[in-house]
Amino acid sequence: MSALGTPQAGKVTISDLAFRLGISKASVSYALNGQPGVSESTRARVLALASELGWYPSSSARALSHSRTDSVGIVLFRDPEQIGAEPFYMSILAGIEGILGTHEMNLLLRMVDPRTVPDERTRDLPVYERWAGEGRVDGVILFDHVHDDPRPPLLDRFKMPYVRLGAGLDALPSAGNSNVTVSQAADAATVVEALHRHGHRRIAFVSGPLDLLHEERKSEQITAHARRLGMSVVLCPADYSADDGGTATIAVMAGLVPGSPEFPTAVVYGNDLMAVGGLQALKRLNLCVPAQVSVISWDDSILCKLSSPSLSALSRSVSDLGRSSAQLLVELIGGHEPRNIQACPGVFQLRESLGRNLF
Amino acid sequence: MSALGTPQAGKVTISDLAFRLGISKASVSYALNGQPGVSESTRARVLALASELGWYPSSSARALSHSRTDSVGIVLFRDPEQIGAEPFYMSILAGIEGILGTHEMNLLLRMVDPRTVPDERTRDLPVYERWAGEGRVDGVILFDHVHDDPRPPLLDRFKMPYVRLGAGLDALPSAGNSNVTVSQAADAATVVEALHRHGHRRIAFVSGPLDLLHEERKSEQITAHARRLGMSVVLCPADYSADDGGTATIAVMAGLVPGSPEFPTAVVYGNDLMAVGGLQALKRLNLCVPAQVSVISWDDSILCKLSSPSLSALSRSVSDLGRSSAQLLVELIGGHEPRNIQACPGVFQLRESLGRNLF
Repeated sequence: MSALGTPQAGKVTISDLAFRLGISKASVSYALNGQPGVSESTRARVLALASELGWYPSSSARALSHSRTDSVGIVLFRDPEQIGAEPFYMSILAGIEGILGTHEMNLLLRMVDPRTVPDERTRDLPVYERWAGEGRVDGVILFDHVHDDPRPPLLDRFKMPYVRLGAGLDALPSAGNSNVTVSQAADAATVVEALHRHGHRRIAFVSGPLDLLHEERKSEQITAHARRLGMSVVLCPADYSADDGGTATIAVMAGLVPGSPEFPTAVVYGNDLMAVGGLQALKRLNLCVPAQVSVISWDDSILCKLSSPSLSALSRSVSDLGRSSAQLLVELIGGHEPRNIQACPGVFQLRESLGRNLF
Repeated sequence: MSALGTPQAGKVTISDLAFRLGISKASVSYALNGQPGVSESTRARVLALASELGWYPSSSARALSHSRTDSVGIVLFRDPEQIGAEPFYMSILAGIEGILGTHEMNLLLRMVDPRTVPDERTRDLPVYERWAGEGRVDGVILFDHVHDDPRPPLLDRFKMPYVRLGAGLDALPSAGNSNVTVSQAADAATVVEALHRHGHRRIAFVSGPLDLLHEERKSEQITAHARRLGMSVVLCPADYSADDGGTATIAVMAGLVPGSPEFPTAVVYGNDLMAVGGLQALKRLNLCVPAQVSVISWDDSILCKLSSPSLSALSRSVSDLGRSSAQLLVELIGGHEPRNIQACPGVFQLRESLGRNLF
């Protein structure tokens, strides 16, 4: 029945169905729950009317009897202002939602600002504790992994299924835990080789915060790959914001970073916002991109396409990452075996900001 | 108790508390629910242990007994790819989340791609129907209002509280409905007057889709205000994407729009993505911004600040809009009177893309 055609006011209850059919509430309940105790013709009448009037079992009653909430939780432990500026998260959520929607499952979203938590070690754990204690979600998807991450042991203790999105290749699936893994080594090789092909031998990498495992791995892999090709690397971590990307750029170009041997001819940025901030800082330094300095963003987004000059970037389907993680979580919740999916490596998008090194 | 210090494995149940205290489950239940039937000293022991072990009432059981879910729902009825590209939605969600978090309430998010719904009239209504039928949320926040919007009557029928975010000034609060209103007239006056001050007399407005009430109102108000100041306006609706913003720009500048008298000297765009797309199209047409054509975006975002030239825009705190709507919804759910909050008008941000008209 079309939603527009609903003839009834308010929510339909088992009492309504019983009253309209002139039978007992118990009979209606038996019929709806597929239990014996009613004739097949009565069952058919009950189901037909329930469908016509748009009756749904209460999520609370169903959760109590089936111990399923049909909800999946995500906690974003990042400054909400920055989340708003990053196209990354909304694309991931869109991908996750695409899979959950086809299973009639709901996405429960929380954002916890790291600056407001009373205890740094406790992080966003109270949200997971509360969700587990209240039986609020069937499982969670984790982002932004750190050393000695306290979330997996907490979730293991609550027997709450979880999927780590963006885990390293060494992450093993275990009871109640699957992973969408990303090879930082493959991506670092792609970026460094593109720079090498364009004649760059001295590069800088402005990473995100190094307490995030994937940023630490990116730095290691870029350094390792560049050294293999005889290139030098200056590392400078920043906080993912455009402003800090600009500040790090000035530090790198001014040789303020310890160990900076000479002026780098190319800068790689850990995300799109920092790359755009870096582009602006280079302009303020009167350095021409790409004639004097080339720029590459590790993440691609609309910001990279629309900036001027347009930014060369490592491109991947972010919504696919979301889809894979939701798919794995739906499987776990449904009792399937834990498993890993390795995300497709990034594909290099050559745009205006990468040029041949002339120095 | 700190989350890190939880000594217990798994979820704490009433049985666990009863076993540890050596009393009956019924006594524990009486104590936790504030019912008579236990001594005050037993009640105190139960509550102390429940707090220590991190016991939470099951959300399902509480929802059944209190008919509250402590969840608020949002359905985004837009192409998920576009949602991912627009900083707007994530900032709004961050604002909403900020308020819900302080009330320990959860945000339930669904995205429905308009291209995938079987019946255009039915839109995203099945999600609201299902949420109401299942008792899944305590209320919802509505975006993107249209003529003869079928959502309010559906929600009224289900007695589901809702807040319209971005409603017109004429939207009246009613039983179960509050509004965050936006004055398109005030914002249009700000934009048109800024253009007039810079000597522009022939302008174009590339709006979003005209089935959205706020885009229709923007077009009307820009036209009315420009006419009052003796300026001419060419209107051209587009679909909010950067690509379509570019296409509309070429149409407007080439005089392909019916009624276009002469070349406009300034173009206003209904959102930031279209403005950035328009900027690129003007470059392809070899038109210099702002020397030959000025550009203004109705929405401000990081895209406007980071584009080159940077985009003059109407700036407002999007997360404040989210906070106000969540605040009104929490009030409605708590049984307070419906009321409207009028959002602060946008503030004009002068950046490089607006210049003095020289023609």
